[in-house]
Amino acid sequence: MILRMSTLFVRTLRDDPNDAEVPSHRLLVRAGYIRRNAPGIYTWLPLGLRVLRKVENIIRDEMDAIGAQELMFPALLPKEPYEATHRWTDYGDNIFRIKDRKGADYLLGPTHEEMFTLVVKDLYSSYKDLPLSIYQIQNKYRDESRPRAGILRGREFVMKDSYSFDIDDAGLDASYQKHRDAYIRIFDKLGFDYAIVKAMAGAMGGSKSEEFLAKAAVGEDTYVRCSNCDYAANVEAVTVRAPAPVAYDDAPAAHAEETPDTPTIESLVAHLNAAFPREDRPWVAGDTLKNVLVVLKHPDGTREPLAIGVPGDREVDQKRLEGQLEPIEVEPMDEAELAKHPALVKGYIGPGALGEESTSGIRFLVDPRIVEGTRWVTGANVPGSHVIDMVVGRDFTPDGTIEAADVRDGDACPNCDTGTLESARGIEMGHIFQLGRSYAEALGLKVLDENGKLVTVTMGSYGIGPSRAVAAIAEGTLDEIGLSWPRDVAPVDVHIVAAGKEEAIFAAASSLAEELSAQGVDVLYDDRAGKVSPGVKFKDAELIGVPTIVTVGRGLADGTVEIRDRASGEREEVAVGDAAAHVVGLVRG
Amino acid sequence: MILRMSTLFVRTLRDDPNDAEVPSHRLLVRAGYIRRNAPGIYTWLPLGLRVLRKVENIIRDEMDAIGAQELMFPALLPKEPYEATHRWTDYGDNIFRIKDRKGADYLLGPTHEEMFTLVVKDLYSSYKDLPLSIYQIQNKYRDESRPRAGILRGREFVMKDSYSFDIDDAGLDASYQKHRDAYIRIFDKLGFDYAIVKAMAGAMGGSKSEEFLAKAAVGEDTYVRCSNCDYAANVEAVTVRAPAPVAYDDAPAAHAEETPDTPTIESLVAHLNAAFPREDRPWVAGDTLKNVLVVLKHPDGTREPLAIGVPGDREVDQKRLEGQLEPIEVEPMDEAELAKHPALVKGYIGPGALGEESTSGIRFLVDPRIVEGTRWVTGANVPGSHVIDMVVGRDFTPDGTIEAADVRDGDACPNCDTGTLESARGIEMGHIFQLGRSYAEALGLKVLDENGKLVTVTMGSYGIGPSRAVAAIAEGTLDEIGLSWPRDVAPVDVHIVAAGKEEAIFAAASSLAEELSAQGVDVLYDDRAGKVSPGVKFKDAELIGVPTIVTVGRGLADGTVEIRDRASGEREEVAVGDAAAHVVGLVRG
Repeated sequence: MILRMSTLFVRTLRDDPNDAEVPSHRLLVRAGYIRRNAPGIYTWLPLGLRVLRKVENIIRDEMDAIGAQELMFPALLPKEPYEATHRWTDYGDNIFRIKDRKGADYLLGPTHEEMFTLVVKDLYSSYKDLPLSIYQIQNKYRDESRPRAGILRGREFVMKDSYSFDIDDAGLDASYQKHRDAYIRIFDKLGFDYAIVKAMAGAMGGSKSEEFLAKAAVGEDTYVRCSNCDYAANVEAVTVRAPAPVAYDDAPAAHAEETPDTPTIESLVAHLNAAFPREDRPWVAGDTLKNVLVVLKHPDGTREPLAIGVPGDREVDQKRLEGQLEPIEVEPMDEAELAKHPALVKGYIGPGALGEESTSGIRFLVDPRIVEGTRWVTGANVPGSHVIDMVVGRDFTPDGTIEAADVRDGDACPNCDTGTLESARGIEMGHIFQLGRSYAEALGLKVLDENGKLVTVTMGSYGIGPSRAVAAIAEGTLDEIGLSWPRDVAPVDVHIVAAGKEEAIFAAASSLAEELSAQGVDVLYDDRAGKVSPGVKFKDAELIGVPTIVTVGRGLADGTVEIRDRASGEREEVAVGDAAAHVVGLVRG
Repeated sequence: MILRMSTLFVRTLRDDPNDAEVPSHRLLVRAGYIRRNAPGIYTWLPLGLRVLRKVENIIRDEMDAIGAQELMFPALLPKEPYEATHRWTDYGDNIFRIKDRKGADYLLGPTHEEMFTLVVKDLYSSYKDLPLSIYQIQNKYRDESRPRAGILRGREFVMKDSYSFDIDDAGLDASYQKHRDAYIRIFDKLGFDYAIVKAMAGAMGGSKSEEFLAKAAVGEDTYVRCSNCDYAANVEAVTVRAPAPVAYDDAPAAHAEETPDTPTIESLVAHLNAAFPREDRPWVAGDTLKNVLVVLKHPDGTREPLAIGVPGDREVDQKRLEGQLEPIEVEPMDEAELAKHPALVKGYIGPGALGEESTSGIRFLVDPRIVEGTRWVTGANVPGSHVIDMVVGRDFTPDGTIEAADVRDGDACPNCDTGTLESARGIEMGHIFQLGRSYAEALGLKVLDENGKLVTVTMGSYGIGPSRAVAAIAEGTLDEIGLSWPRDVAPVDVHIVAAGKEEAIFAAASSLAEELSAQGVDVLYDDRAGKVSPGVKFKDAELIGVPTIVTVGRGLADGTVEIRDRASGEREEVAVGDAAAHVVGLVRG
């Protein structure tokens, strides 16, 4: 197949688009792969669509290879199934809602767990029908609050979502592993440098969950990896390894002290060191217990106060906190709300007034590091006063623990004894997920087991975004002169440039294009005549980023053409007669 | 490729779905090709998706063959371009509208003229860039008032829409012809029995327009064809050939007569024959002129009365009338509105009180048959009174003509001298359309011509619905026992049934499946063991409708298998060893 630049529906741009935030976005627009129609909504021009389809087909082949079967749901979906799982409400503003001419409610599918569950319920009824994996590749819709970076985070985007259905947990484990292996093959094929990180299970319960992140400085997802072992996790999913309880027989009794004007940890530590100096070492922020008050907004609209205790040298990480509580939303507690709890004194809040059994009745959860026997300086619930030597398990008992403290470079790895965590950024490319039985329960998907008893099916959910993958691949391979596609996803195999005005050059370039096309090689042939200079053609070729660029130009007089590797920049002169065979060798690998 | 019935995600149904209106819908659901999610919204199960993709690829190949380039627009579109062309308003309730979280207006694309026009405006600027044809295959959305017949008229459906862009009318003619030829190849390949009929140009102006209709009794579109020549037209698009003017020198003067209690044509004709008998022949309805009053509802909300005159033996055809006036809507004039025009007497309305120059000021358009010199009996605008011998051009002059009278079997063909029209029903499968310059003007698509002058581009629009095609093909080929696919769109090439319980039968069937698959033949292999009887398997095979059915059963003892042609029912016994070669021969044609 030959695309000719003289007729191809593409125009390269010299200038960056105004709204481009990341290099891949800038270059995909400039090279004529995509165009923006509205925030987070894009058109795929012919070159872009070719890359998208290649990515989709790589994914499709691996899905088919593990026996997953393709079907296709509508994007426009009735409300009712999403009400059964509460997601109609839980999604809040994040979904597009529509009323039809009769006033019936619809949504544009953000993900299709409900529909897949229902179609299996419709067709299947016996354990003999399982295991089953089914998938679709389809446009999905999310009304993102901040659509970003072109097709990296769009509001309309392409998604491959598959779902597994099993009779028991062992079956789910096996289906999950099959998908995980397929995803590894897909990401290898797509040419990603990626990490597989532990992730939060999310709203609907479920257990095991991992994300495939493309390593990228522009990535929105922060994850941590261990310096020693292969542990990697989304920041939300990092679990702190709780230290062992500490003996506190020798601990002095808790004693309240006047600490005037110390509403912040910094001012408190300074005061402690001045008024109550310690012999062994100075007081540090980590000796204090900071109690943060928030309000939980439940999906049904009810509000609930919550107190979170973290060591004074850490902050409450909003994303980690929300990750634990999803779909509940979290807000800071404002003055008006605080005023409803007279036992709590701003700046001096302490465990004495917290906990479900306390005067305030506010649930009190603490960081896992705050274990039995540890000693803390914390608020005395009196203005200008703190309690010193407050011992967990002796002087107070929290209602439980929560993973809400921020994660820092250098934190101990929760998986091995010697490593420390370091943070990195990535783009979420895939998410595999043991959903378990929550959707099946909500929608009544049961089958008969071997004994003729109805049992609830257990499910897995597995997603990859092909449109985001196009941007992420571009992001990971581009350089200062343009895009530079891996061979398996490039829009064509070879870009032939006719560089010069002579008839002989066009004749040789054209016949090379035909020869390659006849051998099944896809060619982009820059056949533009007239005013388009070789310099412009080279710049376009560099920008468009086809992995192999053949220049038919001056060398033709000596019987050679130049073959250039776009990624490495390496060039070699090859005899015209050998050029086709040479290129075929490169393409076939 | 082998699909095995034991694992394929399909279940056949013995009973018809409740909501099925037409045979194709019934069978596509029963055979496990589609499932309904909401009115006009369907899921494609694996077998259905395979057929849909084959149809799409046949269309894609022919589009590519005429040099059209594929791209893909979003389905979720911003309002502004559709406001520029007034279609945001004109579509009324027929589009799905959405507000995003910021309150911005969007729609789900019903068709993409605006977006195609804008992308060409974005990329192109010179006559040298033209001609251009671009297309997409994509989900489209229309909030039909009556979604119908499964995927025949859905609210979410797949559409291939292409658009041509030319510098002048000759270019548009050539692009139109190329698409027309490609459509003929597509419809031949899809195995349709179809008619190409003249159609209305529709809302946005434009000139030439033809529809490709699949002939089908269940079709919603009525068209007429000539008994003699190749004329065929949508009923809306039929143009009446106006007779030559008639000399009226000898016509008697018009004379008002008392015709008490004759508000209907029937009562009038009876009275005429009783009170004013003619010598040569009796009065008939066709001698009278019926004047019908309607109200036009313009898209901007204004209302305008209109009078339409037709021969008394014809009715005003609402669809034909609306076809002429689109996007204006038409309502009958009610009593209250009529009362505003005191010159008009219900049941006795005549041209004397009609026309822009008349006392009523109501525009008066007549059927083209009402030509100069013809004589009519018509209302005298006085209760119980009609005028006889009212001559067009002498006694009254209408404001113009309109194609609003109903079209009947036996009407003269407008294209030849001897043929008469007969009506037939069809399913609209494709529509090709010379849009002209209306969209380019509304959205400012101009390019520089040879003289450096800006000129407006002229466009064509060409659509086919692949999802509707699947239903229409099914409808045209099914029989009383099930679906019966043409080879080019069948979900697989051959259906192998292992009919029996013996190990040897399964071994032979399986090895035949493998052998065919290795040769590139797609196989559906019914490998179900246990309780599934051969009878059930045969019924399923007939229902699913793969064109070739191979039964490996009792004959195996004699070394033969049965090869059955699903459409004709013809069967032959073939030696096991020859079966694969035989099937390959059938598949390759």
